[in-house]
Amino acid sequence: MAEDNRIPVTLIGLGSMGAALAEAFVGAGHPTTVWNRTAAKAEPLVAKGAVRAEAIGEAVAASDLVITCMTSYEATKQALEPAADALSGRTLITLNSGIPSHAREFAEWATGHGARFLDGAVKNVPQAVGLADTLIYYSGDKAVFDEYESTVKVLGGDTVFLGPDVDTAKLYEAAVGTTLLPALVGFFQGAAMLKKRGLEVSSMVPYSIKWLEMINSILPVLAEQIDSGDYSQAFSSIGLFHAAIDDEYQMGRDEDVDISWQAPMHDLLRRAVAEGHSEDNISALAEMFLKPEKKD
Amino acid sequence: MAEDNRIPVTLIGLGSMGAALAEAFVGAGHPTTVWNRTAAKAEPLVAKGAVRAEAIGEAVAASDLVITCMTSYEATKQALEPAADALSGRTLITLNSGIPSHAREFAEWATGHGARFLDGAVKNVPQAVGLADTLIYYSGDKAVFDEYESTVKVLGGDTVFLGPDVDTAKLYEAAVGTTLLPALVGFFQGAAMLKKRGLEVSSMVPYSIKWLEMINSILPVLAEQIDSGDYSQAFSSIGLFHAAIDDEYQMGRDEDVDISWQAPMHDLLRRAVAEGHSEDNISALAEMFLKPEKKD
Ligand SMILES: NC(=O)c1ccc[n+]([C@@H]2O[C@H](COP(=O)([O-])OP(=O)(O)OC[C@H]3O[C@@H](n4cnc5c(N)ncnc54)[C@H](OP(=O)(O)O)[C@@H]3O)[C@@H](O)[C@H]2O)c1
Ligand SMILES: NC(=O)c1ccc[n+]([C@@H]2O[C@H](COP(=O)([O-])OP(=O)(O)OC[C@H]3O[C@@H](n4cnc5c(N)ncnc54)[C@H](OP(=O)(O)O)[C@@H]3O)[C@@H](O)[C@H]2O)c1
Repeated sequence: MAEDNRIPVTLIGLGSMGAALAEAFVGAGHPTTVWNRTAAKAEPLVAKGAVRAEAIGEAVAASDLVITCMTSYEATKQALEPAADALSGRTLITLNSGIPSHAREFAEWATGHGARFLDGAVKNVPQAVGLADTLIYYSGDKAVFDEYESTVKVLGGDTVFLGPDVDTAKLYEAAVGTTLLPALVGFFQGAAMLKKRGLEVSSMVPYSIKWLEMINSILPVLAEQIDSGDYSQAFSSIGLFHAAIDDEYQMGRDEDVDISWQAPMHDLLRRAVAEGHSEDNISALAEMFLKPEKKD
Repeated sequence: MAEDNRIPVTLIGLGSMGAALAEAFVGAGHPTTVWNRTAAKAEPLVAKGAVRAEAIGEAVAASDLVITCMTSYEATKQALEPAADALSGRTLITLNSGIPSHAREFAEWATGHGARFLDGAVKNVPQAVGLADTLIYYSGDKAVFDEYESTVKVLGGDTVFLGPDVDTAKLYEAAVGTTLLPALVGFFQGAAMLKKRGLEVSSMVPYSIKWLEMINSILPVLAEQIDSGDYSQAFSSIGLFHAAIDDEYQMGRDEDVDISWQAPMHDLLRRAVAEGHSEDNISALAEMFLKPEKKD
């Protein structure tokens, strides 16, 4: 149904990500209305064929499908407030980052103004918008997703509906995203160890990539173990990680690199050993998050 | 030079990894002498064609090339002590884990007894020994590596010589390996968030894999930035990570999951902001490891 792919669309918020989303719609031949607080950011899009709305109310009124991409839910609410009445009977999709509870609060506000609401999260950079492999999570009103799935696929070919609870997209975003900062800080500590020796950090990249691929290869088994609560198939035991702690601090002193940022992870290992998980696989550490530490 | 691949080899230490190494040599047609403290572990290998030495001295004397795979350098030294005289004029390769300073100490001991010495580290599981893609680092005596490269390739096709400093293999092992525990703990926190909502942890695995692949895709640029010290191409700024901290704690409270293990990473972000890195790319965090925090 090629016709379905050409419905009018409004895109509000033309920062790095919003501009890329608007450009994808224009490129796919959708009549695209755009609005941004700082109006000048609309100009490159107008040059490509988008229509700039003067006021946000006009932007909302221009299309049945309104997509926003601003900094946060708070910013989105602030921006939409003057146009709230125009939302009634339209479909609103938010594509900003945020946390699950903020998604729920925003959904209440939007549906309270009569909008059909779907939340989404773009799991890639603006340059990847429009590519077949680009992952975008959605959750919320399933009827909205079904109606507009082919339309939003213009933004990313790997478009997934995670469930009818409106905060599920943000829950997965947070759950999956939690590896980022820790993995990067680990990489930076390693990088500093090489740089202090006068070695090129770039020389370790092929090995780091292979290492993260190794981690990826064990995630399915770790997930199954956490789902079942059976950690007995211990190919990489808690005890093994625990036994390495002292050597890690020795290495930190030898190499003059401060590894103390890992101390809370070592505490988790110690707690897991104290609770009898020494022979269990490393995935048993998940239990430390499931039953929180007793506070004195 | 097929003949080169059939030289006699001695393998000492027949735990999970050592047994796999010995089996690879036997399978490749090398006359293979084996020894293990707990002698019974040699039996499956003898059944496949290995020769069991009665005493460790006999094992060392049986081949010009002696490879050890025991728990640590300490254990290796303890085991080899009675056979130390027999090391003179032979080549010793250690394939245990450890830290750089321990590798240096062991190398001194081994060369002090007249052995030519090469250190190595198997960057994979025992089941992967012998495969074309299996990565094994070596460092130390370059002449030894050149002489035995084709022989040790039997253990892993991705055999790399990292440099003449004997501790370089262990340095890279540590530097590259530092992502493991933090990335896993991040995954476990995310897993707990889903499990607390009654969702299957396995459902997030495809997204987690894609996410670590995304991280892999940015490592080359991050490494270049750290090598050059120019962090100005900020596709993911320190300020962006810093601004997200409060929401992360809010989410931790909302989802009843304790994210405080990340507190030292947040402190690193705060220090980086305080030192003027807010607009710099996240790779500028490496600087926090390069110039250590001033203690009061
Ligand atoms: N960039 C990425 O790599 C990336 C990747 C995945 C997800 N995201 C998410 O996408 C969302 C947008 O990111 P971005 O990179 O496009 O950010 P950005 O370049 O900083 O743009 C922010 C946008 O929000 C608007 N805005 C902020 N507060 C506003 C308010 N009170 N009223 C009206 N408009 C307001 C800005 O308008 P002005 O132009 O007037 O300031 C601008 O259009 C964020 O939630 C981000 O986490 C970004
Ligand atoms: N397994 C893996 O996935 C893996 C992966 C990469 C690297 N590695 C590294 O490979 C090395 C060996 O690991 P592994 O998995 O084979 O360990 P393992 O199954 O626990 O075997 C340990 C070996 O060390 C011997 N040993 C320990 N202390 C000794 C001593 N004082 N004297 C004589 N022998 C002693 C043991 O002899 P007994 O049989 O008599 O106890 C056994 O042969 C470790 O450094 C490990 O970190 C392992």
